[in-house]
Amino acid sequence: MTDAIDARARAVRTSGLVRIVGAGLLGSSIGHALRALGVDVVLADASPAQLRLAVDYGAGRLARDDDRPDLVVVAVPPDVTADVIERELGAFPDAVVTDVASVKLEPLLTLRERGVDLSRYIGSHPMAGRERGGAIAARADIFFGRPWVICRDEETSARDLAVVEGLALDLGASLIEMTPEEHDRSVALVSHVPQLVASLLAGRFVGAEDASLRLAGQGVRDTTRIAASAPELWVQILGANADPVVEVLDALAADLAGVARALRDPDAPGARRAVADTIRRGNEGVERLPGKHGQNRRFETVVVMVDDTPGQLGRLFGDLGELDVNVEDFRLEHSPGAQFGLGEISVVPSAVTVATDGLAARGWKIASLND
Amino acid sequence: MTDAIDARARAVRTSGLVRIVGAGLLGSSIGHALRALGVDVVLADASPAQLRLAVDYGAGRLARDDDRPDLVVVAVPPDVTADVIERELGAFPDAVVTDVASVKLEPLLTLRERGVDLSRYIGSHPMAGRERGGAIAARADIFFGRPWVICRDEETSARDLAVVEGLALDLGASLIEMTPEEHDRSVALVSHVPQLVASLLAGRFVGAEDASLRLAGQGVRDTTRIAASAPELWVQILGANADPVVEVLDALAADLAGVARALRDPDAPGARRAVADTIRRGNEGVERLPGKHGQNRRFETVVVMVDDTPGQLGRLFGDLGELDVNVEDFRLEHSPGAQFGLGEISVVPSAVTVATDGLAARGWKIASLND
Repeated sequence: MTDAIDARARAVRTSGLVRIVGAGLLGSSIGHALRALGVDVVLADASPAQLRLAVDYGAGRLARDDDRPDLVVVAVPPDVTADVIERELGAFPDAVVTDVASVKLEPLLTLRERGVDLSRYIGSHPMAGRERGGAIAARADIFFGRPWVICRDEETSARDLAVVEGLALDLGASLIEMTPEEHDRSVALVSHVPQLVASLLAGRFVGAEDASLRLAGQGVRDTTRIAASAPELWVQILGANADPVVEVLDALAADLAGVARALRDPDAPGARRAVADTIRRGNEGVERLPGKHGQNRRFETVVVMVDDTPGQLGRLFGDLGELDVNVEDFRLEHSPGAQFGLGEISVVPSAVTVATDGLAARGWKIASLND
Repeated sequence: MTDAIDARARAVRTSGLVRIVGAGLLGSSIGHALRALGVDVVLADASPAQLRLAVDYGAGRLARDDDRPDLVVVAVPPDVTADVIERELGAFPDAVVTDVASVKLEPLLTLRERGVDLSRYIGSHPMAGRERGGAIAARADIFFGRPWVICRDEETSARDLAVVEGLALDLGASLIEMTPEEHDRSVALVSHVPQLVASLLAGRFVGAEDASLRLAGQGVRDTTRIAASAPELWVQILGANADPVVEVLDALAADLAGVARALRDPDAPGARRAVADTIRRGNEGVERLPGKHGQNRRFETVVVMVDDTPGQLGRLFGDLGELDVNVEDFRLEHSPGAQFGLGEISVVPSAVTVATDGLAARGWKIASLND
């Protein structure tokens, strides 16, 4: 698992000291990734507890008075992003400052209104995240293979641009150049509206019968998975990107009204066709998404039935240890009332046969391999 | 895959001959599962090619003139379900007939209107599927642990009910009894509307810029995954369940209009609160879904740092076994480049102290308690 990062260690572009302000998911993840490349990373966070956690986990070190960062990465919530960018530009007059906020136009307009000299600032946005937040969820690999939007403008020097691009490339991301407006319209469509739609759909379950919800399957679980996201952050993101979000929402509302009308009056001219077209356009749209077949499937999964009694997982992992199989990820699915759980063991592809045959020989019931 | 089924082979409830009409995903999957239990299965399908494929794959055998099935399973598209049920009831006067269609009221009303004797018919619906269809996608294990709705009525004999329930139990499903109306309202909420919403959202990508779609991440991919479903089937399902679907769609449209209004005019009274409430209700709704996320709230989490070497998890679970702590769920977070992972151990609240103190005393570094 460390190979991907180690292999690139010789070509590290980021040099000097990197200061990361905000030790949450993105900030701490950037810290872990840079530390793995041997870069000196200093962390700051308004929350002493979050900062301590991030430092304990190895995402970076505490600040010292003589720190002179070459690059400052602002990874704080959207509503304080402009303030922190302004403060960091002032505090470190030799540093390039970037931010990783999900909305790019509003902080820029705020800073311009205040007359801040933005020649050393370059907005950016790594398209990476997890539904869980905080330093505890940080992972060095969340940027790997993901797009990283960089918003340069005519003020941006080639040297400063190279610093921010180097950070993105060092973390394994691929660069996309966009204007702040293009970025904000794009994330409204592929991130902010999907979040709202998932939340609205899941919101319909609040008043539903228990029995109805028991029928829920993987489809609706996937469709609403991101509805588990944190309200505080999303209120800020949606508020800061309201115009592009509302534009997509309005179009979606019109589409929704159209299909509801067709279902209500199926004998009206074109009604059946309208329903079919909705599903067909959905087919076409989902085909256009990149990587729909899971580009990051570096691991395969072996599923094992595990009795619901103490000691069973110990025996399982003991057996895996004896087989010299390194478990990259493990998840236990446990259905209420069932006498057993399903343990999903992620391993590198070359270990699948060893794990499957070895566990079966030790009496484990292998439930299934990958689809 | 077959082990889970083999282990229960001694208690097979389904006896005699089972005839499956429709050798698509569900029909063929039922065939595979029954064959694995040693049950004689005959397959029929309007498409000779589909039938040959299913037989070649081992889902059952071709029909013979002297077949006298004890149970007929109708697994054909919704628009022909009533016709096939009527035909099979007539052709096999000693058989119990069930169907597995996604909509339960419309076929029943059609058959009643035609005056068909339905005393040997019991509608049912296994909540199982995949986004891929056809005999080629069939898997014996898709029913395992999934709900299987059975719609009995006052005409249903105990003997016939036992036959259909036996089928569901043999395939590893859990039984849920509902009226056709309850079933149809439930699937409108947890299956049909989520499908439409995913299709509508993905439909918005049809006219989008390539660069915008490059920013798509796992969130929107999950949200729109089921938009890849086949139009033909969904037009039938949505058409046959139009009233309950429209009812949910209308409520959703009102919610959507409300949040769009709040975003358009953020300074209106209650606007910011409306956005936060949308996300919060989504949190609450998704928590109610059974499976992965919902059920685990009864448990608390102990997070332990685990070295990235084989055998460490074995030692961890060995220690937990010695402490007599039952692990309800376990998840390993592992960041590439990090020398350790974070093991999240879900336990009942009363076991938190024992687990935390006991593991700490055995030298484990406890990372944190719940977020």
